[in-house]
Amino acid sequence: MAIHTDKISVEKSKTSKIGNVDFSNLTFGREFTDHMFVCDYEDGKWQNPKVIPYQAMSYEPSARVFHYGQAVFEGMKAYKDDDGKVFLFRPKQNFDRINKSSARLAMPAFPENYFFEGLETLLKLDNEWIKPGVGNSLYLRPFVIATEPAISASPANMYRFMIICSPAKSYYNSAVRVLIAEHFSRSANGGVGAAKAAGNYAAQFYPTSLAQQKGFQQIIWTDADTHTFLEEAGTMNVFFRVNDKLITAPTSDRILDGVTRKSIIQLAEDLGITCEVRQVTVEEIKNASKDGSLKEIFGAGTAAVISPISAFEHHEELFEIAEVEDSYAKKFKQTLLNIQHNLSEDKHGWRREVK
Amino acid sequence: MAIHTDKISVEKSKTSKIGNVDFSNLTFGREFTDHMFVCDYEDGKWQNPKVIPYQAMSYEPSARVFHYGQAVFEGMKAYKDDDGKVFLFRPKQNFDRINKSSARLAMPAFPENYFFEGLETLLKLDNEWIKPGVGNSLYLRPFVIATEPAISASPANMYRFMIICSPAKSYYNSAVRVLIAEHFSRSANGGVGAAKAAGNYAAQFYPTSLAQQKGFQQIIWTDADTHTFLEEAGTMNVFFRVNDKLITAPTSDRILDGVTRKSIIQLAEDLGITCEVRQVTVEEIKNASKDGSLKEIFGAGTAAVISPISAFEHHEELFEIAEVEDSYAKKFKQTLLNIQHNLSEDKHGWRREVK
Repeated sequence: MAIHTDKISVEKSKTSKIGNVDFSNLTFGREFTDHMFVCDYEDGKWQNPKVIPYQAMSYEPSARVFHYGQAVFEGMKAYKDDDGKVFLFRPKQNFDRINKSSARLAMPAFPENYFFEGLETLLKLDNEWIKPGVGNSLYLRPFVIATEPAISASPANMYRFMIICSPAKSYYNSAVRVLIAEHFSRSANGGVGAAKAAGNYAAQFYPTSLAQQKGFQQIIWTDADTHTFLEEAGTMNVFFRVNDKLITAPTSDRILDGVTRKSIIQLAEDLGITCEVRQVTVEEIKNASKDGSLKEIFGAGTAAVISPISAFEHHEELFEIAEVEDSYAKKFKQTLLNIQHNLSEDKHGWRREVK
Repeated sequence: MAIHTDKISVEKSKTSKIGNVDFSNLTFGREFTDHMFVCDYEDGKWQNPKVIPYQAMSYEPSARVFHYGQAVFEGMKAYKDDDGKVFLFRPKQNFDRINKSSARLAMPAFPENYFFEGLETLLKLDNEWIKPGVGNSLYLRPFVIATEPAISASPANMYRFMIICSPAKSYYNSAVRVLIAEHFSRSANGGVGAAKAAGNYAAQFYPTSLAQQKGFQQIIWTDADTHTFLEEAGTMNVFFRVNDKLITAPTSDRILDGVTRKSIIQLAEDLGITCEVRQVTVEEIKNASKDGSLKEIFGAGTAAVISPISAFEHHEELFEIAEVEDSYAKKFKQTLLNIQHNLSEDKHGWRREVK
């Protein structure tokens, strides 16, 4: 049965998979809701946005995404409060960023009304998949891929924009141990590190697998030239707490402009915590660890929210970070979750209710 | 009708599209032959290689290639001589390189026998698509994509290896004008520039589109740190001829180890032409242009074979390169094409006949 909203055509799923999902035992990104949003770009414009049952789709083997990596994505979450109200968190940031990512990869911008109406239509249809309770969320994955069936190495003329939704618990549950990059790099000056480009992620898998073999879950990337400056962790931005001061790297064309990152910078200001946004060297953090002034390191990202980091290694030297009483990581995480779940005042207007 | 070779199952196409193709007027990478090779990786191994009719296939929206860019490819060509014999050119180089690319992206190696039996089975079935005559070829595109339907940011457990084939003329027919990169970059030290990773290509499209708006077809990339050293052109390695000497950048983790590149280095040695493999600066080439010692610049790659470069721009200064009588570019192109098309001796054993 196909019904039509103003712009988005809707075909409802005849059955729901929700009964098969164990919400208390979710693996990130493996279960998807009953519906998805699809909009194709052809003849110079985005055509017929639609919400249809979640399903596999057919692609030519020459579809350009398979060959030249024209693919960008976003990560966002929907939250439900105890009254059943559904909220997004700063979704305009994600909308702006996916178009920024697309522009860097020579892909067309997506219209704002389609983006939000697509999200809202999906969230209404799959409302039951959003579970209340802090820590529960529905992870939303907008993405764009080049579908044109031709393997010339140039921007495609056909794209597909999709949103799929996956019920989630917080991504990393326990503190992570990280390796500081000394040889491999995530991105170049003048490259695509600031874009949520698909290829940026595959590029990290091999170095990360080497780190994992050494007992570390993640890598903190450094600048490719000198490996002197601490940048980001690939799926998270990174904050360092030295005594009572926070430090985080400035965004650049190498570093993703994270929504959680910028929210923490604002929350720090609200809480009267100094947050320096500046280049931070590996040496500085090692020295701070040695003299006892390094109190915390934590990652910040939509999937992980806030991930405390309990140890880092550099030049075969391991630095452990003891838990602190008044953890900033915990404070920021709780503050963010309370805002996201409509449990506290939203003085910056970050929540957007889905009605 | 499915017949079986030793290892590869074959399902022949019932009809051929070949009658619809205008072989005198081909656009690169837009027409594909009647068959394709497919082999899926699951449960820790490559399963059931098969040749089937060229067709679209179904992918989950969560297939990891769409999100994290785990995708690598190769470019190779098959040639036919006037006796109808079919040849590949140094195909072991491509086989080795696709596995090297895969390793860098944490993807599994593909078995050598499947690779070559797949190619040979395809080339026999689609033999009519390989046209004799210098300049004609069948472009072969092996590629591997991550198909696992789960969006966790980690290496996939399921992949698809495919080979598709597209009839081709030489890629760039006339001399190209290039811009020297001053702001944007192709790859980082410690990055994936040496891999034929899908994401490397999308990353170049936007800067290249800016270059095209200025009247240049391609960019010669420079090192991301200082933009001082000339590296490669994204789809081609680059050679500079200063007086009678050739210079080309050494391969590195930023520069692709091109098969045409290494063949030219060998041919130069055969012809008694000095070829220096060393870092080459923008300044050096600008100075050589100014003092008249810069005789040629040309790109070298499988798709383009050899592309003479007729002008380059750097810091808004345009340098034109006049055509020379005894063009190395022409000489290398002819020598390569003669070897590839079985028109001359093959002293290095580069041809591999497909029987």
